Amino acid sequence: MHSDGSELRFAPVILAGGSGTRFWPRSRRAYAKQVLALNGDQTMIQQTLERLLPMADTSNVWVVTNHWLDKIIAEQLPTVSAKHILSEPVARNTAPACALTAYIIAKTDPEMIIGIFPSDHVVANIPRFSEVIAAGVKLAAQGENIVVLGVPPTRPETGYGYIELGEAVGPNENDGKETVKAFRVKRFREKPDGHTAERFLMAGNFAWNGGIFLWSAQTLVAAIREHATDLVPILETIAAAHGTKDFERVFADEYPKCENISIDYAVLERRSAKGEQRSGIYCLPADFGWNDLGSWASLHEHLGTSDKDNVIDGPTDGLIGIEAEGNYVYAPGKMVALLGVSDLVVVETPDALLITTRGRSQDVGKIVRQVHEGLKREDLI
Amino acid sequence: MHSDGSELRFAPVILAGGSGTRFWPRSRRAYAKQVLALNGDQTMIQQTLERLLPMADTSNVWVVTNHWLDKIIAEQLPTVSAKHILSEPVARNTAPACALTAYIIAKTDPEMIIGIFPSDHVVANIPRFSEVIAAGVKLAAQGENIVVLGVPPTRPETGYGYIELGEAVGPNENDGKETVKAFRVKRFREKPDGHTAERFLMAGNFAWNGGIFLWSAQTLVAAIREHATDLVPILETIAAAHGTKDFERVFADEYPKCENISIDYAVLERRSAKGEQRSGIYCLPADFGWNDLGSWASLHEHLGTSDKDNVIDGPTDGLIGIEAEGNYVYAPGKMVALLGVSDLVVVETPDALLITTRGRSQDVGKIVRQVHEGLKREDLI
Repeated sequence: MHSDGSELRFAPVILAGGSGTRFWPRSRRAYAKQVLALNGDQTMIQQTLERLLPMADTSNVWVVTNHWLDKIIAEQLPTVSAKHILSEPVARNTAPACALTAYIIAKTDPEMIIGIFPSDHVVANIPRFSEVIAAGVKLAAQGENIVVLGVPPTRPETGYGYIELGEAVGPNENDGKETVKAFRVKRFREKPDGHTAERFLMAGNFAWNGGIFLWSAQTLVAAIREHATDLVPILETIAAAHGTKDFERVFADEYPKCENISIDYAVLERRSAKGEQRSGIYCLPADFGWNDLGSWASLHEHLGTSDKDNVIDGPTDGLIGIEAEGNYVYAPGKMVALLGVSDLVVVETPDALLITTRGRSQDVGKIVRQVHEGLKREDLI
Repeated sequence: MHSDGSELRFAPVILAGGSGTRFWPRSRRAYAKQVLALNGDQTMIQQTLERLLPMADTSNVWVVTNHWLDKIIAEQLPTVSAKHILSEPVARNTAPACALTAYIIAKTDPEMIIGIFPSDHVVANIPRFSEVIAAGVKLAAQGENIVVLGVPPTRPETGYGYIELGEAVGPNENDGKETVKAFRVKRFREKPDGHTAERFLMAGNFAWNGGIFLWSAQTLVAAIREHATDLVPILETIAAAHGTKDFERVFADEYPKCENISIDYAVLERRSAKGEQRSGIYCLPADFGWNDLGSWASLHEHLGTSDKDNVIDGPTDGLIGIEAEGNYVYAPGKMVALLGVSDLVVVETPDALLITTRGRSQDVGKIVRQVHEGLKREDLI
């Protein structure tokens, strides 16, 4: 943490391997959500890096992505070392990705605090984000603590996993800034059905799992050894080759052998089974205006000031709306004319035109599946 | 009529001065509906000419248009003489346009039968069209007859004028082909309200006025002299200059003095006031699959085989429809993906995107008015 002069060293790991089908046709396999400028001039991964830089040296930043995206990410993040951009030969979910960075970093700096950050979420309140992450880094540096961030839920969302909170152990810092409270974690809960999500929301001690985790390199290495033993020899082999001329070949040969498993399931859920007092898992509040922009509808919500706004996104040539409200339109460079239509999502690219509704926009993946599997149109995915 | 060897000579006059706002953003002032290929490879005015050519020499074809469209029409109709393409300096509705051609033609051939044809309608049954027009030309050549074509109404449409039919006088030919019945005309009725349109439809003796008229040049000149006296000196002056180097200047100076009035109102309604036995106005059935393609919705209906069809118009790159029906989309070259949407009209051009519904598509003119008068975007109209 060079910003406050403390001795703690912090390595953000940005996970950027998502395929981004939800923002089709703007997002493509080779132009996924994280490399798009959906909510500003910067792309989402550029924003992700920028909000971390006050807390970490760029030389400590890592990115895990895939061969569709690695070149554009290297262009968008020119300050990140090429050796720190790991391009997975195949997708194996988050456990191998997180653990590999821990194995590599642990070779030289086992006490480094690693933070796992999705590359495609937005944060409204950057100062608060910095406070919470700084508190999390301190907490993760104590013993073998694992720190997860929990988003205060605002609706009975069935699209996220939930974290069930236990005993409050906070405030863990109170030096004139706003307090960051910590809770022990009781359990991780998978995506619930609607009824269960309602119950979680009412109970008051559940948070959304936003996919941000903090731990020391050696803590995660030890946790993998304990909870995901099969990964150990594979990751040791790949980590040993990192920095050598054989790395790409070894990565390509070994990584596919990894189990396809999320870090939540491989480590967090298994560790939490030890019970809230013994697991060493803590949750800090992600109360910094978090939004995962999971669909065109949530982008509409993020960009509009009201649900009834017509949001004309991108470089537009103007809007005429007659008896039209709640529409989201992306049609760069064009005059958009809306007449007697509501709650539509219309997205135009040079090769495709999507027309759906805000209510159906989370199903855009069905379109992408038809483009891919039905029509075999590799050029459009 | 060179096709059947008769002596009757026939000069089709194609009216092509429409501004085509209903098909915005595809149609523009300088690229109106009549010069678009809305329903096939040929543009609407090319189709209009082609269906007339079996009945008329190209050298007898005339076009009345405006300076936005005259060059593209000359390109699209290369066989029509440049002297026969009259470019109105200002729009003055149909009476001056029709009458001017009659004055010009009457200078050399007062017995020529003139047929007035809108340039932007479609005809499904071309052989039947030819029969009806041939019958109309014969009928118009008798005395001072005026022949109008009446479209058999199929719904209580409030967007057209109606012709009230009187006594049947047909068949006026029955030489092995299908009969073409003629009726005397009782009255012309302006666009009715919904209730009145229902009554017309039930009564059974009303037809839509489709804007196709036949008369000899001298008959129309005489009718103008009788019913629209103020036009006479203006049209005589312009007609006298036709074929001279002064024509453009005289046309530009004189034509704006004409009253802005439709041929229906200036001649047909006034003449019909003489009573059905004395007016000499006859109606022939336009029972040849007439459609004026008056809106995106009627184009959807014309192109689809069912109301529930998704119609992807133009050169498309494919369609994916999931729980989507009754949509009309024009997005040339693009893959169109429809998810959970119905009865929409979406039209994309390089500079504009229109999103409306089939039910509202007749109001597209409201959009064009805002583009023009509100936004002053001359480039988009």
